[in-house]
Amino acid sequence: MRQLHHTFEISTCGQGLYNFTAEVANWLAASGLRDGLLTLFVRHTSASLIVQENADPDVQGDLQRFLARLVPENDPLYRHTLEGPDDMPAHVRAALTQTQLSIPFRAGRMVLGVWQGIYLFEHRRAALRREVAAHLMGEE
Amino acid sequence: MRQLHHTFEISTCGQGLYNFTAEVANWLAASGLRDGLLTLFVRHTSASLIVQENADPDVQGDLQRFLARLVPENDPLYRHTLEGPDDMPAHVRAALTQTQLSIPFRAGRMVLGVWQGIYLFEHRRAALRREVAAHLMGEE
Amino acid sequence: MRQLHHTFEISTCGQGLYNFTAEVANWLAASGLRDGLLTLFVRHTSASLIVQENADPDVQGDLQRFLARLVPENDPLYRHTLEGPDDMPAHVRAALTQTQLSIPFRAGRMVLGVWQGIYLFEHRRAALRREVAAHLMGEE
Repeated sequence: MRQLHHTFEISTCGQGLYNFTAEVANWLAASGLRDGLLTLFVRHTSASLIVQENADPDVQGDLQRFLARLVPENDPLYRHTLEGPDDMPAHVRAALTQTQLSIPFRAGRMVLGVWQGIYLFEHRRAALRREVAAHLMGEE
Repeated sequence: MRQLHHTFEISTCGQGLYNFTAEVANWLAASGLRDGLLTLFVRHTSASLIVQENADPDVQGDLQRFLARLVPENDPLYRHTLEGPDDMPAHVRAALTQTQLSIPFRAGRMVLGVWQGIYLFEHRRAALRREVAAHLMGEE
Repeated sequence: MRQLHHTFEISTCGQGLYNFTAEVANWLAASGLRDGLLTLFVRHTSASLIVQENADPDVQGDLQRFLARLVPENDPLYRHTLEGPDDMPAHVRAALTQTQLSIPFRAGRMVLGVWQGIYLFEHRRAALRREVAAHLMGEE
């Protein structure tokens, strides 16, 4: 049994879903590990992780617009407003999605379904550099 | 340290929660592993995983009806409508719950609380065959 | 490769977020493990786990009030009312957040971002004793 750490850096340019499935698959392939468990952990509280459909980009747009309406900006409920109108909604949207994902892998490939992609879900408007910590544990 | 892969196939007949705790517990027992980590990963983006109360079935019904109202069909916000009125809401409901669950096990049993069951949460209306990838890593 | 189990007991006194990052970090440090994967699993269906900002306490208050409004008490939709008006909303709020968190650790420290804390999210009003099962797998 062997393990490996890595950090994916993802540059975002506004709210939306950023597909980094290929980067993760390439890292896994380069590791030489064939069977085990892969874990991704986003190191921020205003961005999140999500597995969603990679076929029709409208799914990603609809999901983002749905969350934007469900968790609106400038809600009088918010007291945390110092970091801008998009910050507190970003925290809530992150809380409603995922901070971490673990995906088993087999014969060197993640057990993702055919239509599944791995996305960083950026909830803030500014261009940012996001870090996703990654961990592999498995056997060759 | 030893590991094991499996795929649970769950036939669904419409929206709702499908308890497959016993299947998972039996697979774990048959593995002979006593201490370690079990991971479940749903290979779809319109169904999800959830740990919920296994005592009063009304909890499951209330949860399902709450999500159905929160994420309605035929919302004018949706652009992704080609796969039917229940498809885009299914993606959103899946995003708001879980794609993956990891549960430690000890002395051959998952550390679930007394009232906790493991459910596949089906968000589509049609009868479908769903796959949940499963992974064990641990010691005898 | 070595593993370790533990149960964190957290006494709650009403709804809100309870930070137990230090307890987890101390347990990890005491284990002597330096590289691996840490998993937390809440053994209840009316409380959940969440990683959120540890800087401005208003973030936690806003998040709690947002969920309280999104998933209100005394909703005529609920059939499960026997355990009190706060019980069914607690199940829904738990379903919308997380039951489990896995966090890689490196050089003896969890790969949390600077502003990230680990919280038990209590969704019930009564004072309760909650259990979070914890598992470490890794190397010295």
